[in-house]
Amino acid sequence: MSHGIITPSRDVYIISSGSVAGHEEEAGPIGGCFDAVDTYEDRFGTDTWEKAESEMQRLAVGFALSKAGVDTSDVGAMLAGDLLNQCVGSNYGLTDYKIPYMGLYGACSTASEGILLGTLLCSSSVDRAVAVTSSHYCSAERQFRFPLEYGGQRPPTAQWTVTGSGAFLLSGNKGDLEKIETDYVPRVSEVLPGYVTDKGISDVNNMGAAMAPAAADTLYRYFKEGHDPSEFDLIITGDLGSEGSGILCELLSEEGVGITKNHVDCGCIIYNADEADKHAGGSGCGCSAVVMAAHILKNIREGVLSDVLFVGTGALMSPLVLNQGSTIPGIGHLVRITGERIGK
Amino acid sequence: MSHGIITPSRDVYIISSGSVAGHEEEAGPIGGCFDAVDTYEDRFGTDTWEKAESEMQRLAVGFALSKAGVDTSDVGAMLAGDLLNQCVGSNYGLTDYKIPYMGLYGACSTASEGILLGTLLCSSSVDRAVAVTSSHYCSAERQFRFPLEYGGQRPPTAQWTVTGSGAFLLSGNKGDLEKIETDYVPRVSEVLPGYVTDKGISDVNNMGAAMAPAAADTLYRYFKEGHDPSEFDLIITGDLGSEGSGILCELLSEEGVGITKNHVDCGCIIYNADEADKHAGGSGCGCSAVVMAAHILKNIREGVLSDVLFVGTGALMSPLVLNQGSTIPGIGHLVRITGERIGK
Repeated sequence: MSHGIITPSRDVYIISSGSVAGHEEEAGPIGGCFDAVDTYEDRFGTDTWEKAESEMQRLAVGFALSKAGVDTSDVGAMLAGDLLNQCVGSNYGLTDYKIPYMGLYGACSTASEGILLGTLLCSSSVDRAVAVTSSHYCSAERQFRFPLEYGGQRPPTAQWTVTGSGAFLLSGNKGDLEKIETDYVPRVSEVLPGYVTDKGISDVNNMGAAMAPAAADTLYRYFKEGHDPSEFDLIITGDLGSEGSGILCELLSEEGVGITKNHVDCGCIIYNADEADKHAGGSGCGCSAVVMAAHILKNIREGVLSDVLFVGTGALMSPLVLNQGSTIPGIGHLVRITGERIGK
Repeated sequence: MSHGIITPSRDVYIISSGSVAGHEEEAGPIGGCFDAVDTYEDRFGTDTWEKAESEMQRLAVGFALSKAGVDTSDVGAMLAGDLLNQCVGSNYGLTDYKIPYMGLYGACSTASEGILLGTLLCSSSVDRAVAVTSSHYCSAERQFRFPLEYGGQRPPTAQWTVTGSGAFLLSGNKGDLEKIETDYVPRVSEVLPGYVTDKGISDVNNMGAAMAPAAADTLYRYFKEGHDPSEFDLIITGDLGSEGSGILCELLSEEGVGITKNHVDCGCIIYNADEADKHAGGSGCGCSAVVMAAHILKNIREGVLSDVLFVGTGALMSPLVLNQGSTIPGIGHLVRITGERIGK
């Protein structure tokens, strides 16, 4: 059986990250952590929502490269994707960067998929890789549900697509640690890719329920290999929202795995809990990307968190196939991020 | 500069491949090579074109696994993607296989992107990986252009989306070679991922012109590192069609690189040249996937070809962004496949 936890064959670090978000996200609990925010109407100087999303990705990668002092010629792979049809957020946003480009499609799990694949590439084939993803409330709503002008009502299980982009610069080059000024550097110490899991959910307004079984499956497989939830400062999923988080904890509890003490979900901490419009919480590729890039990695770098399990979750459907009567398959990819003290 | 040719850190072989195609493809020059064909109306026993595409992927992976005698539990990664919005061809087609799943989006370059990433994974992190992709004429036409019933006229530069799926089973496990019964086994000896390249083409009926500069760029970078086109039995691109192939040869010739003697394009050899409807040739993720899986790899296994450069090309646009006035970015990923004699 070759589906177990993969330990990178050499140490791979997240040497920097970049994050860009919209004005609704800035108003939330982690609003002060983003590298750039459009405080007006989330257009980022462009004339369409899709171009705005591309511009967020361009900016996020720019921040990650600048902070690490790394040039595009030193990055061997760009791993990028988003929710838009044909991933045009990424394809158009990153043309400026002359970095070998590999497109991903993992829906909201793209941040974790990119970090996972980037880590495996940096452990052998390339020195550095950048993983990046994004979502935009306005481009996602009109593509997946209704045009904004329609003003449709949403049920309590619905989530709110995050406007934001997060980029992660990975390196297997130990020399890069010399330039880091924080006390700790995040290292991707283990990864575990998920299976496509379909438990028959077909409600497009309840993505949390569709993705929770995939997250539960990946976490169960991880803990079965000898780990215990109590070993970790944080088990963070993204983005199940409040509905999906409840289901995840229940599914794992049925298998004898208790994670309620240290579990949080990216979708539940990006907006203030009293914001009625956000319903079950944030979603979209940008959700876990900005929470990880701006908030969690910052806490790891500062030594506040030192061992984190991140399970990025995605719902792999399209509006077309749901209209054809299909159910919603989910996926959850796990990356373990450990804070390593830099010997200075 | 870390953008050069990557040589896998251990030998990685394509131990088997599977291919499935439609009835138009069966009527073409390589029609006799496919593992399965729907000779009637390309529905593969399903009730929508999207489900037919998923079913082709399921079948192609099944053939690849069976031929190699490899069980799903022995395959560490599934790398899959297609042209459909949110890659639902792959997401829904592969749920039956319990293999860790990583979604790709590379448009028509997906076969090469999957082989490239799978090779790098098999050279270090996993023992085996399967790369798979597909396209379907009927699902692609209605998504990218017009519903079939509209019967729109197409210009001579337009290409015809191939109905087909190709799967490639990669292995870094030398023990797998024992079971191989052919004289030669294809080995992925080098890879070179491409850059996103946008030269300002905006004609959705001339994808060849949009992708040719990306293929030229990747090939130029490859030959600049000391290789000469004459070293190879074949330089095969996919899928530029006749229009794009002409542009590719011209662009490389301007740089002093002559490939006309041994260059062919997957889009130009999948249909008979006298089929007027096919215009500039085949296209779609399935085009290079089935030509490589069914035809080229067969020739390598039989010793007819022994050193092949494959540059898979993709156009990374969506109909929406073209309507918004954007141009078409292209990409080209290179994999070198060498036939290795098995010592028996």
